[in-house]
Amino acid sequence: MLSNTRTIRIEWGDCDPAGIVYYPRYFEMFEACIASLFERATGLTKYQMLRRYEFAGYPVVQARAQFLAPAKYGDDVIAETTIAEFRRSSFDVQHRVLNAGRLAVDGFETRVWVARHPQDASKLEAKPIPQDVIERFTRA
Amino acid sequence: MLSNTRTIRIEWGDCDPAGIVYYPRYFEMFEACIASLFERATGLTKYQMLRRYEFAGYPVVQARAQFLAPAKYGDDVIAETTIAEFRRSSFDVQHRVLNAGRLAVDGFETRVWVARHPQDASKLEAKPIPQDVIERFTRA
Amino acid sequence: MLSNTRTIRIEWGDCDPAGIVYYPRYFEMFEACIASLFERATGLTKYQMLRRYEFAGYPVVQARAQFLAPAKYGDDVIAETTIAEFRRSSFDVQHRVLNAGRLAVDGFETRVWVARHPQDASKLEAKPIPQDVIERFTRA
Amino acid sequence: MLSNTRTIRIEWGDCDPAGIVYYPRYFEMFEACIASLFERATGLTKYQMLRRYEFAGYPVVQARAQFLAPAKYGDDVIAETTIAEFRRSSFDVQHRVLNAGRLAVDGFETRVWVARHPQDASKLEAKPIPQDVIERFTRA
Repeated sequence: MLSNTRTIRIEWGDCDPAGIVYYPRYFEMFEACIASLFERATGLTKYQMLRRYEFAGYPVVQARAQFLAPAKYGDDVIAETTIAEFRRSSFDVQHRVLNAGRLAVDGFETRVWVARHPQDASKLEAKPIPQDVIERFTRA
Repeated sequence: MLSNTRTIRIEWGDCDPAGIVYYPRYFEMFEACIASLFERATGLTKYQMLRRYEFAGYPVVQARAQFLAPAKYGDDVIAETTIAEFRRSSFDVQHRVLNAGRLAVDGFETRVWVARHPQDASKLEAKPIPQDVIERFTRA
Repeated sequence: MLSNTRTIRIEWGDCDPAGIVYYPRYFEMFEACIASLFERATGLTKYQMLRRYEFAGYPVVQARAQFLAPAKYGDDVIAETTIAEFRRSSFDVQHRVLNAGRLAVDGFETRVWVARHPQDASKLEAKPIPQDVIERFTRA
Repeated sequence: MLSNTRTIRIEWGDCDPAGIVYYPRYFEMFEACIASLFERATGLTKYQMLRRYEFAGYPVVQARAQFLAPAKYGDDVIAETTIAEFRRSSFDVQHRVLNAGRLAVDGFETRVWVARHPQDASKLEAKPIPQDVIERFTRA
């Protein structure tokens, strides 16, 4: 299965008064990493994907992370992102963040492929993940 | 065990292009809710607590959440925060966020009481939670 | 002209490694304060306003702030928000944030009332501010 | 005077329900750009700089920006950062953000070089910018 690895600089504004990453920022990092992984697979930014596949995003239904070692501003962490499993309309993502060669964060998310409800645009509903998207990951 | 309930307004800036809460924001909410719970127990803000108990914070070592229903800007959600267990130097927190009477987010965190390492102020190390703090929760 | 005053708790997650508010957070505060001011004037949340007045928001075209005194986590600041002027499709907002009786932040924004372009929903265009909205401020 | 140019991907989480960058995020971008500019001049991350030059940061005393064109998730903007002037203990920074060749944001900040007060570590006070730092910019 296709995976993606990025180097991410921890910024001053990512850190709290203890001088280490304020942990919600790791979940922001996960969001960016998934967009990057999908872009690598499809060649499309998330904006382009939403238009091409006529959906509204892939919100999180479950997220968890273990924070094993701190990171501070100025550190360059390495984030590895892998789709663990595609199901009909949901998928699992594995995130590993390494700092100086050590596993710093071990994260996991379940996300659902959603579209606007045809009768009520203010509502989102699950939708099958396009086969074309899945194939771009498994072919890679 | 003492718990705390707060009403939180979801703001425009908490929401993503799908119009619903960008999920890392819920973890920011958890952080604020714990500070509020400790303040209710001790009568001290987090700033005052760090000085009174000579520690450096209670960073998260594990966090997880299930997102069961979306919330959008303008919604007033109710966040319930409870310490599930105090151990020697760590504690578990249960978070429940209700939107319009429905469970929207079910969250759980494990946090560690830390202090600056006496020989190296750039390092944090686990430290026993003061008995006085624990008693203020169990007495309540 | 109607104005609004709110007490806002500075949270741990609003602060940077220097222990003071990370300044982009003040602009997030401004966003929330304007929504609150409009709600006071119209009785509608921003979500309800967008539906009632058929517009897409009031993005910022100009913002500035002077940061005169720091605030730290645990501080309760007072934010005063006033519409300085309504024009045809834009308006100016004055923000003052007080900490312990002292002016901490003096801010100013110009915002534009926008709607989706009728031929291209991905574009936003300026639109006259509804007279009904303006009257709710000046009447107050 | 040394300046720095970076390409920054706008992420889903940087955008609001209108689908465009939530403007406080631009000020977060400015913070990262300044750290990057100083790193280019000194060869040190901000963490390393704070230790090498014994100071506590360069908080903002004044910031302003004009938002001339929107950016959306998936856009790659170019951020140009230049020190406009160094004074004894403060400096001005010019930020220009280009999107698709067009000036999207024109920003300006005044920042102060600060250190912990020797008698009261909870207070920050202005301090002269080290001559060595200034020279690294002007020499470049």
